[in-house]
Amino acid sequence: TDRAARAWFKARCTDAGLTVREDAVGNTFARFAGTDPALPAIATGSHIDAIPHAGRYDGTVGVLGGLEAIRALQRAGIRPRRSIELIQFTSEEPTRFGIGCLGSRLLCGSRDASADETLCDKDNQTLNEARGAAGFGGSLNGVRLAQGHYAGFIELHIEQGPLLERAGIPLGIVTAIAAPASLRIFIDGEGGHAGAVLMPDRRDAFLAAAEIALAVEAAAKGTGSRDSVGTCGLCEVFPGAVNSIPSRVRMELDVRDTSEARRETMLAKIALGCQEVALRRGVTIRREMINADPPAQCDPAVVAALRAAASQHHFKFQEMVSRAYHDSLFMSRIAPTAMLFIPCRGGVSHRPDEYASPEAIAQGTLVLAEALAELAR
Amino acid sequence: TDRAARAWFKARCTDAGLTVREDAVGNTFARFAGTDPALPAIATGSHIDAIPHAGRYDGTVGVLGGLEAIRALQRAGIRPRRSIELIQFTSEEPTRFGIGCLGSRLLCGSRDASADETLCDKDNQTLNEARGAAGFGGSLNGVRLAQGHYAGFIELHIEQGPLLERAGIPLGIVTAIAAPASLRIFIDGEGGHAGAVLMPDRRDAFLAAAEIALAVEAAAKGTGSRDSVGTCGLCEVFPGAVNSIPSRVRMELDVRDTSEARRETMLAKIALGCQEVALRRGVTIRREMINADPPAQCDPAVVAALRAAASQHHFKFQEMVSRAYHDSLFMSRIAPTAMLFIPCRGGVSHRPDEYASPEAIAQGTLVLAEALAELAR
Repeated sequence: TDRAARAWFKARCTDAGLTVREDAVGNTFARFAGTDPALPAIATGSHIDAIPHAGRYDGTVGVLGGLEAIRALQRAGIRPRRSIELIQFTSEEPTRFGIGCLGSRLLCGSRDASADETLCDKDNQTLNEARGAAGFGGSLNGVRLAQGHYAGFIELHIEQGPLLERAGIPLGIVTAIAAPASLRIFIDGEGGHAGAVLMPDRRDAFLAAAEIALAVEAAAKGTGSRDSVGTCGLCEVFPGAVNSIPSRVRMELDVRDTSEARRETMLAKIALGCQEVALRRGVTIRREMINADPPAQCDPAVVAALRAAASQHHFKFQEMVSRAYHDSLFMSRIAPTAMLFIPCRGGVSHRPDEYASPEAIAQGTLVLAEALAELAR
Repeated sequence: TDRAARAWFKARCTDAGLTVREDAVGNTFARFAGTDPALPAIATGSHIDAIPHAGRYDGTVGVLGGLEAIRALQRAGIRPRRSIELIQFTSEEPTRFGIGCLGSRLLCGSRDASADETLCDKDNQTLNEARGAAGFGGSLNGVRLAQGHYAGFIELHIEQGPLLERAGIPLGIVTAIAAPASLRIFIDGEGGHAGAVLMPDRRDAFLAAAEIALAVEAAAKGTGSRDSVGTCGLCEVFPGAVNSIPSRVRMELDVRDTSEARRETMLAKIALGCQEVALRRGVTIRREMINADPPAQCDPAVVAALRAAASQHHFKFQEMVSRAYHDSLFMSRIAPTAMLFIPCRGGVSHRPDEYASPEAIAQGTLVLAEALAELAR
């Protein structure tokens, strides 16, 4: 499905006269050449991959909106001095390889690219095998782009939260992106027959997991800030039979905050909770940090360009932080970056009923086009 | 794998000169003909299916032990008046179709056989399709045996608990079988992006599941009897992504007691717990009773035959209840029934390290052979 979507997307870029390049991890770059192509380009883009049972707007709006922004400039006869590059990032969602924003992390050099070659999916296929099968060759080390490669980056995205809709405001200009941390937790208890092992003799791995999930919720609610969130989205119980005591659990936790200090406080509370549960229930708990990235501040000049573009069309906007994290978090390390949010119905995302209206997408795309043109002028 | 094991088992029965019959659900009957084959036979047997990641003794000891008991009688030149039938019951474990003891339930007529034809496994294959593919034809209604079809039934089984081993006693004669109840619980909450949905706005289905699992444990520990056990062995979290709030959970619970009244108290506490959690967390919780069978009392004459057989060889034994449930629970509805337990290492079962020593199995098989011969005399 991913490859079919990529092929369709590349054909639309070629139709628009853009030059398409793909790197070793499948990040796709479609270039609208400027009058001075030697200058660092201005970039925009997002992702088209999805979690299981996802909606159709998360990421896609930024990729197709970026393409339409370029086409709008072409239709208006605008040929900027700097080139404009549309990027479709590989594996923004952690679904397949367990790492969110894999493509943009490699682009900005935040990961050990050599180690990533042997990253495995659930079927034990390595990233190297998967990208080879998809036709992306060469070393992952070649993915990294230098600081200054782009003169700016803007990502158009649905808000994935309720604030714009509740306020009745059509545009959000993102000034900071929250700091995500994700952990894997492995619990080893002792299995046995659900009928025969007496309650005091049990070391049930799932009951330990249940207490940890509730401890994550308590840690997030306990900071006193509405920007603190903690989620246990994945819990696999082994062996998983109605008449068998769970011997092993694998959980994945997601802990975020706009403040790195508050996030650290939550993580410390969760770690303490795990220790207490392990001791009391006689189970072994191992924690493995998948990632813990610092938050990003958006670039004032790019934010100013978005503000000017919105004002020019008399669109209302508000400045806000992004609680979800995005490829922009990593692009901000190598390029002046900001994000543009549009409302989505009910703030709902990562669900099949995710929805953003054509009008909201059009407004976002128009402001994106104006800001790109201004930065590339 | 099941079909290969069945073929191997039938070949061993044929080698021993037994006549093999299979019914519409695959229950297998291997008959050692008595001198008066018109009399109701004495039966023994158990199952050879298993839960995922199981051990090798649960059930198998009773099937192969039963075969060896018959072979021992043959070697000793004993030809009893009544025939002896060895039964291998289909799907004792609920793993595939969600119903424990499916074969023996159908044998004793405790289920609506017509409805069971459309029972589905996880891959949406019906029982009818599965048994057809395995070569078992005819109507499920034909599986049922009449009350009095057998003059007695004995099941040899590992204890699946620690009591015999702890007491250093090689044999347990079962006088009652605990009453199991199993439930499915479906929780519907609201999904969403793990970064973007604020904590007070959440209706997380997994956190509700966590509280219910802990409520099950509290209910079992709260009865004051060591015979009360409650387990949540299965918990499936949907959509199951690290960055997505769980919208839906399916759990399966197992609640048992030797006292039906205490079991009902536990179930009532769990139901109350579900209501409270649903209200407080704004989720919908639906409970579905998979089965709730009454406990069985073993037959005094069959128990006496086992006692006499053990005493004859000066083997120590203790009378005990079975906390696990077995095909015997259902056979007891159509035939005078008892069970014979042998110790298993550490009381461990439903795990790959499940173990019963050859000596323990041999002692159990010898006592089984003597008791079968006495009842069939």
